[in-house]
Amino acid sequence: MSERSADVVVVGGGLAGLTAARAVAKAGRDVVVLEARDRVGGRTLNREIGDGKVVEVGGQWVGPTQERVLALAAELGVETFPTWTEGKNVLSTGGRLRRYSGTIPRLGPLALLDLEQLRRRLDRLGGRVEPEAPWSAKDAARLDSQSLATWLDRAGFTRTGRRLIDVGVRMSMGADPSELSLLYMLAYARAAGNFDAMLDVEGGAQQDRIVGGSQVLSLRIADELGQRVVLGAPVRRVERDSGGVRVHADGVTVAARRAIVAVPPPLIARIDWEPALPQTRAALAQRMPMAAMFKCTAIYSEPFWRDDGLNGEGVDDRGPIEATFDNSPPDGSPGALVGFVAGSHARRWHRLEPSARRGEALTCFARLFGDRARGAEAYIEQDWAAEPWSTGGPIAVMGPGTMSQLGPALREPVGAVHWAGTETATTWTGYMDGAVRSGERAAAEVLG
Amino acid sequence: MSERSADVVVVGGGLAGLTAARAVAKAGRDVVVLEARDRVGGRTLNREIGDGKVVEVGGQWVGPTQERVLALAAELGVETFPTWTEGKNVLSTGGRLRRYSGTIPRLGPLALLDLEQLRRRLDRLGGRVEPEAPWSAKDAARLDSQSLATWLDRAGFTRTGRRLIDVGVRMSMGADPSELSLLYMLAYARAAGNFDAMLDVEGGAQQDRIVGGSQVLSLRIADELGQRVVLGAPVRRVERDSGGVRVHADGVTVAARRAIVAVPPPLIARIDWEPALPQTRAALAQRMPMAAMFKCTAIYSEPFWRDDGLNGEGVDDRGPIEATFDNSPPDGSPGALVGFVAGSHARRWHRLEPSARRGEALTCFARLFGDRARGAEAYIEQDWAAEPWSTGGPIAVMGPGTMSQLGPALREPVGAVHWAGTETATTWTGYMDGAVRSGERAAAEVLG
Repeated sequence: MSERSADVVVVGGGLAGLTAARAVAKAGRDVVVLEARDRVGGRTLNREIGDGKVVEVGGQWVGPTQERVLALAAELGVETFPTWTEGKNVLSTGGRLRRYSGTIPRLGPLALLDLEQLRRRLDRLGGRVEPEAPWSAKDAARLDSQSLATWLDRAGFTRTGRRLIDVGVRMSMGADPSELSLLYMLAYARAAGNFDAMLDVEGGAQQDRIVGGSQVLSLRIADELGQRVVLGAPVRRVERDSGGVRVHADGVTVAARRAIVAVPPPLIARIDWEPALPQTRAALAQRMPMAAMFKCTAIYSEPFWRDDGLNGEGVDDRGPIEATFDNSPPDGSPGALVGFVAGSHARRWHRLEPSARRGEALTCFARLFGDRARGAEAYIEQDWAAEPWSTGGPIAVMGPGTMSQLGPALREPVGAVHWAGTETATTWTGYMDGAVRSGERAAAEVLG
Repeated sequence: MSERSADVVVVGGGLAGLTAARAVAKAGRDVVVLEARDRVGGRTLNREIGDGKVVEVGGQWVGPTQERVLALAAELGVETFPTWTEGKNVLSTGGRLRRYSGTIPRLGPLALLDLEQLRRRLDRLGGRVEPEAPWSAKDAARLDSQSLATWLDRAGFTRTGRRLIDVGVRMSMGADPSELSLLYMLAYARAAGNFDAMLDVEGGAQQDRIVGGSQVLSLRIADELGQRVVLGAPVRRVERDSGGVRVHADGVTVAARRAIVAVPPPLIARIDWEPALPQTRAALAQRMPMAAMFKCTAIYSEPFWRDDGLNGEGVDDRGPIEATFDNSPPDGSPGALVGFVAGSHARRWHRLEPSARRGEALTCFARLFGDRARGAEAYIEQDWAAEPWSTGGPIAVMGPGTMSQLGPALREPVGAVHWAGTETATTWTGYMDGAVRSGERAAAEVLG
């Protein structure tokens, strides 16, 4: 057991915790970061595929208005490049395959009207909800007493429109509309700007990618922080007293005046708190379960779909992979298709053998991009629920009744303990940009 | 650190775990019970009030069809006595106080029709739901995609009727209708028989009390088990291999062929599992938060309300105490009134000082039973959310989307690990009877 002391101890070496630690260090204060895993980056993770190239098996995209993560990348000398969009998108609904350009698929006019109407109605409803305080919205209790599924059921969408809406929700949230509070969903979309911004590639949250893979942001900050980052040090216990905190991790105890806790929300409940957290904060930690998402990458000698006039973007309402993107390295070699299996589809996948999942994934890619997709050179699967220090992904979510009753506890410091993590952000909640903003906000709190 | 070995190790010395251990011991197998607290009984707890008398600050009532807990009491030589019902009930709605006899209050005919209709409609809807497999019900996904609040909102109840329904839900579940899945609620009520059985005193779940206080059941089993029960031993880690389990608690490690885990559902996620639990089981543990309930007892020199022709049963739609009962010892001395503060009322109470809560509680008692109620000799408050090895009460609940997707993982053994606890019961889920049944079922699994 080693003993260390610092002005600030940060629990969790993901993008939020590292951003916070970097800001604290820049202000001239001592900081120690305790990370449970043997790597930094949290829910961002590069996987090497040879020749010094990587694919990202966690959070990866950035886009317009995500100013803080883009500023961080610039400061770290990390560049971005556009997601591949040249060519047509593919859409499979009700077993029928269509190609289309831009963001508007060739759907029947009613289904198209549905999607347009959905965006307008949700954005209008969300206009009442301020991401800083969704619990203060007019009708907050009513909006929070229903699931998003209930609201969608009542809205009277066409079958095709509704299926595509469910796909969009699962792909963004890792959860089905039944699992989400309407109030929470409105706040989440407002934090991104609107639903279009969440779902779009060009002009939206999937517009750009990070050269070297998104984990490079965390890797570079960790390089800057050097010995201040301790890996393999899961935090088991946090003691608070008038002087500050004592944080006990495997192998090391850190005494500090302040702590910033930047772990996935349900993991807050795994720590022994002495004295106990306030009941509202503890109750919130029990009511923000991690969503479920597999990220599936198929590697090919080349991005063959580009020759077919396709850009790799696909939507398939049959699943289990419901959305795909071209995820090849900047130079287009090798070719990489990425697909997501989320929510109830992920629950079913948890009961399958790996070989069965691989077979289903390649079948999904082949349905959208032709039989050549079956001949992947490699198949890389990441199940965030299987990561003990994430327990799910991409984010923690809220069902009905949580935000209106317990939301105020989300960012409220508990004595010397401050909270970071993308779920605590009020702009781009759930995205890398939100993680960075939450880290900057928590650092400002402890420095203030 | 001591090392022990046994055929079966039981994690959790509440009523479920102790019932399981007793059955295992009776079958001639070695058993060790590891209990985190310095007492047994879990969510049942006696508090001494002098002269060898007790009040119960946790689960306490038993009633017809609760056959297993009644059989256990008989085997242990524990007697029951009827809840005090002589006299009139009081009902405060919209600021108006009424007295009434029996279970039918003098409400306006529309509100009365509401309550009658509610019971009939919910019982009819619940007829499709088998407590053993709610996820297999016709329309399970649809019933699970909505909150109970959504269903009640649509049902068109009068304002008074709806307020009383919300009171009934909070008093039974410790949660507001917004926090509960309709499918889960239907399964829960079916497990009790129907909603009347849950809510009634005479003929229902509040009909009888236990002489010596309900914790005496656990205390007597613990006496029987002797050194097989280890107190102050919170379990931190469970290792599974082909030979069985190694369970690491503070101060002691137990090697056994089988484990029975009988802790509140969210605490399953606090244990280090090696190897990790299946993703569906781990996800379920993140999606069964403990509800919130304060139990408030006011002690008086005598049960003065009886002289006023009242039986101590009261309902008040204003709260924070929304329901009361006469909870005096069998001989009626001293007088004890018990009241419950639950769900959103409990959330508000968590932000108050103890003296403010005491003031509000006595004001509530006085509103129903007159000013003499202000002059309590003692006020005993139990907040189950403040108990670190309960983290809430009376039960763990499910919001929308959990039961249909993850319910099958609730009782499914994971290798040598079996699950008990009242939340795993299919008859009288959430009650002491369910705890006993779950312990008997888990014992039968490991002995089978």
